Amino acid sequence: MQVIETTQELQARADALRARGRRIALVPSMGALHAGHLALVDAARAKADEVWVSIFVNPTQFGPGEDLGRYPRPREDDLHLCRESGVRLVFAPREDGFYAEDHETWVEVARLAKPLCGAGRPGHFRGVTTVVAKLFLAAKPHVAVFGEKDFQQLAVIRRMVRDLGFDVEIVGVPTVREPDGLALSSRNRHLGPEARRQARALVRSLDVAERAVRDGLCGSSAILARVRAELARAPLAWVEYAELRDPTSLEPAPEALEGPALLALAVHFPSAAGGEGAGVRLIDNRVLHPHPHREDRP
Amino acid sequence: MQVIETTQELQARADALRARGRRIALVPSMGALHAGHLALVDAARAKADEVWVSIFVNPTQFGPGEDLGRYPRPREDDLHLCRESGVRLVFAPREDGFYAEDHETWVEVARLAKPLCGAGRPGHFRGVTTVVAKLFLAAKPHVAVFGEKDFQQLAVIRRMVRDLGFDVEIVGVPTVREPDGLALSSRNRHLGPEARRQARALVRSLDVAERAVRDGLCGSSAILARVRAELARAPLAWVEYAELRDPTSLEPAPEALEGPALLALAVHFPSAAGGEGAGVRLIDNRVLHPHPHREDRP
Repeated sequence: MQVIETTQELQARADALRARGRRIALVPSMGALHAGHLALVDAARAKADEVWVSIFVNPTQFGPGEDLGRYPRPREDDLHLCRESGVRLVFAPREDGFYAEDHETWVEVARLAKPLCGAGRPGHFRGVTTVVAKLFLAAKPHVAVFGEKDFQQLAVIRRMVRDLGFDVEIVGVPTVREPDGLALSSRNRHLGPEARRQARALVRSLDVAERAVRDGLCGSSAILARVRAELARAPLAWVEYAELRDPTSLEPAPEALEGPALLALAVHFPSAAGGEGAGVRLIDNRVLHPHPHREDRP
Repeated sequence: MQVIETTQELQARADALRARGRRIALVPSMGALHAGHLALVDAARAKADEVWVSIFVNPTQFGPGEDLGRYPRPREDDLHLCRESGVRLVFAPREDGFYAEDHETWVEVARLAKPLCGAGRPGHFRGVTTVVAKLFLAAKPHVAVFGEKDFQQLAVIRRMVRDLGFDVEIVGVPTVREPDGLALSSRNRHLGPEARRQARALVRSLDVAERAVRDGLCGSSAILARVRAELARAPLAWVEYAELRDPTSLEPAPEALEGPALLALAVHFPSAAGGEGAGVRLIDNRVLHPHPHREDRP
């Protein structure tokens, strides 16, 4: 497995592979790899001849007071996991070298990046789209693989790829979960035991909503009330948002659901380490499929 | 010569050429080709195996009330000129098809795009960088060639390429001029005879400044006063800006010039057709090389 640190070297490698007709699948990551990332690697392997993983804790997607400094960077573990998973190349640019010191060019998706995580983290998606554009230009992949846990991120990246015409196929991979249902995240390791226990409230509230919809509930307010009631069972949780949105446009879902609706959650827990601004922000989501006219059906 | 209309088809063509080790040079244009563009084609030919020209009047770089509607589109003449000049491929996307109807992704250079043309045409460079990014992603060129007449555009594009890591070499080509010195521009054809005569004031004022600097003048205000006096000899002219700027950062030049300084002009003339908002906006520039300590030299 090769480890490359510079864009130029990576582009040369990509050109050489492409000239031989080999297909490259890129898995962009911020490291601290877990089974969720390995599922991305597996999906990537099915789509290409070589899987490349990028590991870069991207400063431009963190806001002031967010957890850039304490984001985990277990470099040797990450490289080991990649090697074990048959990754052929890791792109690990230096944190102080991937952006020019006077960097001033931004790739921005206007509307899709506004609500949900975009509302609570201004500039976050601008950082994501900019770094993903840079990674695509560096690795020149045929395919890139992202997790569906970050539903809005995936939607924003798909929009960027469509609008700018990146010649990259975007693949989304279903969320990988702990045995108790908690979505895997590099941030879970910051939860203390009690917060970790209560963090199950996210997936429980998704389940509650899904059951309610399966039982015929179609009112947004009623569904969200049940979600909030379930989240309220976790007293350590602070709910940043719990919303129903159109899965494509991310516009607010109508009060009477008529088609698929994205239920998206962002919930903060105190971190084990404590300290100011040291909360753990967890997100999760599920697309609900209501049956608005169920009673009319045969 | 091949004419291609879709991004997908162009990307396939680029991949095929690149796989054979052939180098592609792209000349992005809005059509209405003149000898200035042909100089770009010549420069492109020297850098690659195939010269591709894109022809697309990019709506996103025109502001409201600007001349998008009446920008010339002499398609057959353009294709003829390309054919005659040994261009191998013209990319001419449909005006209503290159951007998605709900396009919402923008590539923006923050600082360099602010002053000069950016001040008078808000959103202009955002449109330029977005379309150039799209063209680079579509044509996958090794080299792209731009005219130095649009000095700020060239600087903004170089910055975008550096910041995002486009694997494209950017080549600038000196401005081509009419026998009387007027910089070639697709917009010159809109000048009536008297405005055309007075439009020589732009290059005359550049000459005046260059002579003054050669004669030892180093004060920005004094140089600009001479420039404005020369422009004032054209009573039809309305001066949008006449400024001295650092050629790299585009920050205002110091009062006492110590190194190379960009003299940049934007001047409007009435158009032959007349009508509201129908002025003709001309730009020109020259990098001046003052000798601040000339008297001390041997």
